[in-house]
Amino acid sequence: VSKHVVIVGAGLAGSLLAVYMARAGWRVTVFERRGDPRARGYVGGRSINLALSARGLAGLAGVGLDRVVMEHDAIAMPGRMIHAVDGALTYQPYSSNPRDAINSVSRGGLNLTLIRAAAACEGVSMHFDSPCLDVYLDAPAAVFASQSGHTVRVEADLIVGTDGAFSAVRNRLMKTDRFDYSQTYLEHGYKELMIPSAKTLGMDEQRFGGFAIDPAALHIWPRGSAMMIALPNRDHTFTCTLFWPFESAGGTVGLHALRSADDIRGHFEKHYNDAAKIMPTLVEDYQRNPSSSLVTVRCYPWQHGGKVALLGDACHAVVPFYGQGMNCAFEDCVCLDRCLREHPSDQMAALDAYQRERKPNADAIAQMALDNFIEMRDKVGRAEFLYKKKVEQTLHAALPERVHPQYNLVSFSTVPYAQALKSGRELDAKLERVIAQVPASELEKLGKEAWAKRVVKTFVAQSAS
Amino acid sequence: VSKHVVIVGAGLAGSLLAVYMARAGWRVTVFERRGDPRARGYVGGRSINLALSARGLAGLAGVGLDRVVMEHDAIAMPGRMIHAVDGALTYQPYSSNPRDAINSVSRGGLNLTLIRAAAACEGVSMHFDSPCLDVYLDAPAAVFASQSGHTVRVEADLIVGTDGAFSAVRNRLMKTDRFDYSQTYLEHGYKELMIPSAKTLGMDEQRFGGFAIDPAALHIWPRGSAMMIALPNRDHTFTCTLFWPFESAGGTVGLHALRSADDIRGHFEKHYNDAAKIMPTLVEDYQRNPSSSLVTVRCYPWQHGGKVALLGDACHAVVPFYGQGMNCAFEDCVCLDRCLREHPSDQMAALDAYQRERKPNADAIAQMALDNFIEMRDKVGRAEFLYKKKVEQTLHAALPERVHPQYNLVSFSTVPYAQALKSGRELDAKLERVIAQVPASELEKLGKEAWAKRVVKTFVAQSAS
Repeated sequence: VSKHVVIVGAGLAGSLLAVYMARAGWRVTVFERRGDPRARGYVGGRSINLALSARGLAGLAGVGLDRVVMEHDAIAMPGRMIHAVDGALTYQPYSSNPRDAINSVSRGGLNLTLIRAAAACEGVSMHFDSPCLDVYLDAPAAVFASQSGHTVRVEADLIVGTDGAFSAVRNRLMKTDRFDYSQTYLEHGYKELMIPSAKTLGMDEQRFGGFAIDPAALHIWPRGSAMMIALPNRDHTFTCTLFWPFESAGGTVGLHALRSADDIRGHFEKHYNDAAKIMPTLVEDYQRNPSSSLVTVRCYPWQHGGKVALLGDACHAVVPFYGQGMNCAFEDCVCLDRCLREHPSDQMAALDAYQRERKPNADAIAQMALDNFIEMRDKVGRAEFLYKKKVEQTLHAALPERVHPQYNLVSFSTVPYAQALKSGRELDAKLERVIAQVPASELEKLGKEAWAKRVVKTFVAQSAS
Repeated sequence: VSKHVVIVGAGLAGSLLAVYMARAGWRVTVFERRGDPRARGYVGGRSINLALSARGLAGLAGVGLDRVVMEHDAIAMPGRMIHAVDGALTYQPYSSNPRDAINSVSRGGLNLTLIRAAAACEGVSMHFDSPCLDVYLDAPAAVFASQSGHTVRVEADLIVGTDGAFSAVRNRLMKTDRFDYSQTYLEHGYKELMIPSAKTLGMDEQRFGGFAIDPAALHIWPRGSAMMIALPNRDHTFTCTLFWPFESAGGTVGLHALRSADDIRGHFEKHYNDAAKIMPTLVEDYQRNPSSSLVTVRCYPWQHGGKVALLGDACHAVVPFYGQGMNCAFEDCVCLDRCLREHPSDQMAALDAYQRERKPNADAIAQMALDNFIEMRDKVGRAEFLYKKKVEQTLHAALPERVHPQYNLVSFSTVPYAQALKSGRELDAKLERVIAQVPASELEKLGKEAWAKRVVKTFVAQSAS
């Protein structure tokens, strides 16, 4: 008879894991605290638009779901569009390879796709409106509230908590001895806002295929301590996310301090004027939508006795600034599936191999996501940064086997995150040395072609020495 | 009418705080999960012997309790006695000032003293066997199970959680947004063992005043990855604490791996032979006593809305290697009392001032306690370390206004911990430079007096340059 896995949480990670486990021959029971989005429509809650990239696609591809998601849910963004305060635009491709793009997907749409895929698998049953009330770690078994109001206790061979940053399964593990745990909040929070379609705005619908601004980019308004981003949706709208400290020293500005319609509109007209012009519901959105917090969760171990494991945000919630939370969780699914196959008769060994492989990588992406916040909100608008990116992509194009920018390794490869972090730091030191010898003034002086040759020659000479 | 404070936890911090609050004119209600030690005798639980030093004494002195504790509960330890594997002893005074000593106290005895002192104050009522079930942060109010089996809800002007490393009050605060929290365990655990009195052992009772070994020292058996310490008790016994990883790579040694009587005795005879000879109940103690874990807890904020606060281990549990957990908690009491007096009509301002003052100091002692573990278990037995301590104490004796060793600042002063950490690191760098110019070989060559002059001269010359 097949083994039975209980998956706690039918979000992105849980529903993809259900597909993997079913394909590996397990009997799968999924319990989800929220209602069934197939019946009720998706209740968004607090969710930043997602950027699906190579790791997430590899996770989907492992069970043949990449193509359907790309065709139905995704919009490719091969670069960043930087909006200056005066409205000037600068486009930065993410890679010297124009096929490298991250993909805007709606969390709700993708989750629906994955829940349908899971429910269609043989041996999978899914239960919604069923919060996890308790976990017996050594049985293992879990107790859920059921739709009828009763509680139900479910035995399993394996329980996996894919129940997000505030995981009930992890809370149970926290009561065991020697469970390391941390939750660390940014002083920044975020608020979702909206740019409607060109049609709604009465703008030219031809220019950007129905969108108000170019949909082939992740838009960024870097403002130092604050930042707004916008990602395109399939319905020609953009979801904007404003990142800003909850309070500032003095309390005059910040997410919580801005309240009246005049203050909100005034602030946006001053700092995000080109966006404010195409945000007719700005004031209502700002006043109605919650200000949400940004947390990094780290813990260890991720498994208990070969019987209970954590996966995705439940064991490594990261801030969203590298667009890797979902991608990392999908990579977890691939790893857990592989480890269970490699140790078919020893779950303890399988779960131990899984946590040992994933923990250093989860720590690395958590760090890179925090680092990338500084990059996005501040550096990205500066001339030195733009020049460094130009040098980096020039070297990447000329020496593709030798120069791998960190962003490319993270977003367009499945090289382990820990290795991407390490190699990115090494490359950064090398770039600083190249720039010391070939400063930005050389680009104007020499012209683009001669400058590029000079950059490559300098890099090669330094690497040889 | 007087304001009402509910204190959750009648351990060392909670019972001392009750005295402070009562003296400041508050009505005080204390609830404690455990039974009343006045009725039942103290149930020790997991407790390392405590080292009471300047900060703890200052906390007691603030309410006139220092003398009674020193007279009834304490044994002065002016130095460390290092036990080498071959049984050789080295004594290191803690300070060049022979009056500087840390004091061995029994947690149980001191807790009884403080509970009696609190209960004797006007306006204090104490309830035992009353675990905290819930806290309403904004009322504020707290719910306790009562001795009769009912639950009771208590309203207050202020609730303070002094309920230790696994604080129920903190657990409630953890559910609020943007509460930073971490719990980090060492791979080392500890186990309590025992050295009986000279009389029990049939040894000469005159030599150490009834003790089997010198009671005027904290005894240390540094063994690299492991360490044993022993502190004297008033009944002429020593409480020993073995610190050791729970498991080692390979699993052959470590707290959990040592099981049979032969293995236990064999291990101690090999590594702690001089102690093993005076530990007749070693095997029974080892097998019966639990292996306990060592955690560092950090969190922030320490207060909510001017209505609920945390104090002591509840907000900053530290590892025991600097002997400062209780001392730091008593310093918290002094600070909270002062802040409440300084802002008599603004609890929000009072609690905010309290947490801002104490948080950096709690972080500093947490770090120093972790650092001191390396020092105690490893460095303390090495020649370079002993030489460095000698240089440090020589400079401290010659230049008492200018040279303040970190240990002295932490244990024999009330200089803020954060300042002690900073100044200790600066002094350490200076000592390294002095030692580079006056190496250990100079001590033999020059003789003690000329060497000391040379050390002082070198230090002064370096500081001037």
